[in-house]
Amino acid sequence: MEMVLTLRQTVEDHITQLTTRPQQQDGQAIREQEALLGRLLFQIVSFLPAVAQSFQPPCTSTDSRGDVGGGQPVQTSRQTGQMFYQESDFENTVISYDLSNRGIDISALYHLSFRDYNTYQGNKYHKDKNTLGYINLGTSENKLCTDLLAERLSQSDMTYIDEDLLQYTDWRGQPFLRKEVARFLTFYCKTPEFLDPENVVILNGCPAVFSALAMVLCDPGEAFLVPTPSYGGFAFSTHLYSKVKLIPVHLESQVTEANGYPFQLTVDKLEQALLGAKIEGKKVRGLVLINPQNPLGDVYSQDSMMEYLEFAKKYNLHVIVDEMYMLSVFDEAITFHSVLSMKSLPDPNKTHVIWGTSKDFCISGFRFGALYTHNREVASAMSSFGYLHSISGIAQYKLHQLLQDREWIDNIYLPSYHFRLQEAHRYVTRKLKALKVPFLNRGSGLYVWINLKQYLDPCTFEEELLLHRRFLDHKLILSPGKTFMCKEPGWFRLIFAARPHLLRIAMRRFQQGLVEHKQERRVKQLEDATKEEVSTSQPETPASPALRKS
Amino acid sequence: MEMVLTLRQTVEDHITQLTTRPQQQDGQAIREQEALLGRLLFQIVSFLPAVAQSFQPPCTSTDSRGDVGGGQPVQTSRQTGQMFYQESDFENTVISYDLSNRGIDISALYHLSFRDYNTYQGNKYHKDKNTLGYINLGTSENKLCTDLLAERLSQSDMTYIDEDLLQYTDWRGQPFLRKEVARFLTFYCKTPEFLDPENVVILNGCPAVFSALAMVLCDPGEAFLVPTPSYGGFAFSTHLYSKVKLIPVHLESQVTEANGYPFQLTVDKLEQALLGAKIEGKKVRGLVLINPQNPLGDVYSQDSMMEYLEFAKKYNLHVIVDEMYMLSVFDEAITFHSVLSMKSLPDPNKTHVIWGTSKDFCISGFRFGALYTHNREVASAMSSFGYLHSISGIAQYKLHQLLQDREWIDNIYLPSYHFRLQEAHRYVTRKLKALKVPFLNRGSGLYVWINLKQYLDPCTFEEELLLHRRFLDHKLILSPGKTFMCKEPGWFRLIFAARPHLLRIAMRRFQQGLVEHKQERRVKQLEDATKEEVSTSQPETPASPALRKS
Repeated sequence: MEMVLTLRQTVEDHITQLTTRPQQQDGQAIREQEALLGRLLFQIVSFLPAVAQSFQPPCTSTDSRGDVGGGQPVQTSRQTGQMFYQESDFENTVISYDLSNRGIDISALYHLSFRDYNTYQGNKYHKDKNTLGYINLGTSENKLCTDLLAERLSQSDMTYIDEDLLQYTDWRGQPFLRKEVARFLTFYCKTPEFLDPENVVILNGCPAVFSALAMVLCDPGEAFLVPTPSYGGFAFSTHLYSKVKLIPVHLESQVTEANGYPFQLTVDKLEQALLGAKIEGKKVRGLVLINPQNPLGDVYSQDSMMEYLEFAKKYNLHVIVDEMYMLSVFDEAITFHSVLSMKSLPDPNKTHVIWGTSKDFCISGFRFGALYTHNREVASAMSSFGYLHSISGIAQYKLHQLLQDREWIDNIYLPSYHFRLQEAHRYVTRKLKALKVPFLNRGSGLYVWINLKQYLDPCTFEEELLLHRRFLDHKLILSPGKTFMCKEPGWFRLIFAARPHLLRIAMRRFQQGLVEHKQERRVKQLEDATKEEVSTSQPETPASPALRKS
Repeated sequence: MEMVLTLRQTVEDHITQLTTRPQQQDGQAIREQEALLGRLLFQIVSFLPAVAQSFQPPCTSTDSRGDVGGGQPVQTSRQTGQMFYQESDFENTVISYDLSNRGIDISALYHLSFRDYNTYQGNKYHKDKNTLGYINLGTSENKLCTDLLAERLSQSDMTYIDEDLLQYTDWRGQPFLRKEVARFLTFYCKTPEFLDPENVVILNGCPAVFSALAMVLCDPGEAFLVPTPSYGGFAFSTHLYSKVKLIPVHLESQVTEANGYPFQLTVDKLEQALLGAKIEGKKVRGLVLINPQNPLGDVYSQDSMMEYLEFAKKYNLHVIVDEMYMLSVFDEAITFHSVLSMKSLPDPNKTHVIWGTSKDFCISGFRFGALYTHNREVASAMSSFGYLHSISGIAQYKLHQLLQDREWIDNIYLPSYHFRLQEAHRYVTRKLKALKVPFLNRGSGLYVWINLKQYLDPCTFEEELLLHRRFLDHKLILSPGKTFMCKEPGWFRLIFAARPHLLRIAMRRFQQGLVEHKQERRVKQLEDATKEEVSTSQPETPASPALRKS
């Protein structure tokens, strides 16, 4: 309350200045006064939770941010304080007379987030044409079976075109495709009942589904809890349009409980994060879970998932379960349980599942994402966004043909895909072991979560960034932990869903990067130690240059 | 300034109440105080243009709304006051425990806007299977040459798939397609210099391009001027995400100047609208022009366009020129001049052109929209939105193949297309003349703008809605003028880009609707007159029932 009183005084002073200023005062001074008063208003607003919800402060100051695969670390959730490189990594550095404030902000974030990705796009490794190009093990893109997909999608049953496919359709997606998606998920998610096509919404990619969900479930400034480390694409999606905050539920590498495992998600942690958010006056509307988890590779047990869902129900939260990697579980000892397979969901009306073909079917360029929700109201509200996020009719047809071909999927595609995942995982993890790099040995996803703390000295995010840049010098892109809102510096995600030849070269570059980094750190330490020696051998109070000169 | 002083006093009183209130005061009272203070803050903010840009008021109270082709009239630009059916057509009517406020709002607007469209999708006319289904002459969809397109897109050069097409790509669109779009526009827009592929941004449909442009050019609550009647899709696009206001520049059917024409756009009207907006404290960032105009069919002369651009430059406004129908000029006496053909644009850095294949190439289901801007900063900021609005790689490939086939376009497609447009236009306008329905006789676009005022009595938007419903009773969808923010009731847009057979049945239904409407209005008038007669023949002060009984 003391602060409110101080604010009152300051607001009063400024309003007085605004109202009593001489009429001839120049425009610049007036704008400065107004801007100052504006900032004060923001401060008042932050004291009024009920009001704050209706306001959207400029996105440069409060939004969640994250990297989207293979990018350079950028600001993430400023609320958490500890995770930023600097308060103003890029804001105020761009002056534009043509863009809006949010345009400047979005553009700056994009170019930071996608800098490496864009460099890669412009200078890709090619075994014949460009052997010095970049290899991208940063972006979660599945290149293991693109050959099989290119072959399947070229078959004659795919080329059909009718006039209906060329026209506007249902904004939720073509009815034939929604029907097929419902059938597909019924089968592969082992649902207790047939899923209903009316509960399916199809948009152009899962980020679009997440963006639209954030709009229909949250008002600006409201928040989702997200266990971290977590996929950075959510943060980028919500930053573009919906201005929904992502509040990290920080998981830790250290195992503290018996039968526990690193980065374990517990209800206790969820409750702590929720309490923290409430204390800070944030309105939490939901919980985002990724299963199989990205970047950890964890597959949640049914019991664990039930606990998370019960937690959400208790606090009246939506749960968005991203099951993007559900067919990418390659360890035969692990069984994936879709949330759609549960016989009795604690709160079916608030449980929403996202799935797409980008990862499981190696066709990220298709731009297909689907929502399944038992909540007809949510499905209905999501339809509106088909107006801005729908997919080409011809692509919808091909997706239908692909998903309905169970024989090909079960007998040809999935066996090959899982075999190749196993091989690539085996190759990469063997290399990591040889290099004495600790990692989480999981059996799902396209990635391993590796620990390179030993290469950071001190163990900070600044050092993590330097190591990341070292790999870039060796034309290798990895994703540093900070882009996943990881609390601990030194972790990286390494994508192994690449062809053997590429993976071999990538791992060679990885090793070279590590060796070079270690050597240079050692040289630097030696230099520092020498400097220190020199400085301690100097007189404690050095003479001024003038004196020395004399 | 007087109001600022009053506000200061009120803010002070409330802050005092907040800070001095007894600690035991209940939560409800506190929230009420906070909400009150919040509302006051909004009022202060509206006095501070510089600050107001950064705030986004709740979308239920201030957003532009519009219908998107074939829908029922809904609220449009509340600021204009005169155009609404009611202040609260749908807000507060939906109670949801699962959706956000904006989710409820968006959902309600969608279902109102697309009610007819969705009904049509579920019950389409078919010459064999469903002769009683709806015919949609409301949505601007081009069905004249889908046969030619289906044929061309089925040819062998279209089916190529390589692995790159299945992967992530440049978020601005595949480089090969951006290059082709630059070439295509260079040729068909007759540009003085080769257009640069780096200035092209490709997203999934023109509404997506408009949505992203609104984000990067405007902050929430800022506005574009839009001469009306105007395409309703812009309003729907901006309502979903960007919360940019569309301020109508109302054009009038009456011709007031020598050499003038109905609904003529003049700089004088633009200046009036801009002044009006400034008086109301709105920050106008740009002007949206559609050329050829939708729904009027006007093609702007080079001189007129130059005047609009000079106006924009004078007031430092962006100009977005939507040239969606540039190849749909079917009157050979008319020459379309793209804004890209101008040798010296008044402000090239603030001139942005939108084009897509939905209308000119009858493939609305492809979801392709392109931006061309000389402003590299705008192009760059737009790239971010490729993350949420990109097109399937395989569809991008087909679009490339289509656009590069100049021989087919010039020798087969365009001659057939223009011939069919002429035929359909001739058929529909003859029918309209026979029915004595006035209309704008233009030579571009897929539509005629028709005047049905004679069927409204009184001439109100309520009556316009009743006439619209009359057509629906006859399973015919037209778009009423209100969905284009037209100021005068009684105008409708009729799409004629349908095959002859369908058009014949549609015009029969149109005629039946008009005849029935006229008859019923006459019957009603007679009934009203009879009632009046009866009531005037009664005693002026009727006796109370009790008295009469006795």
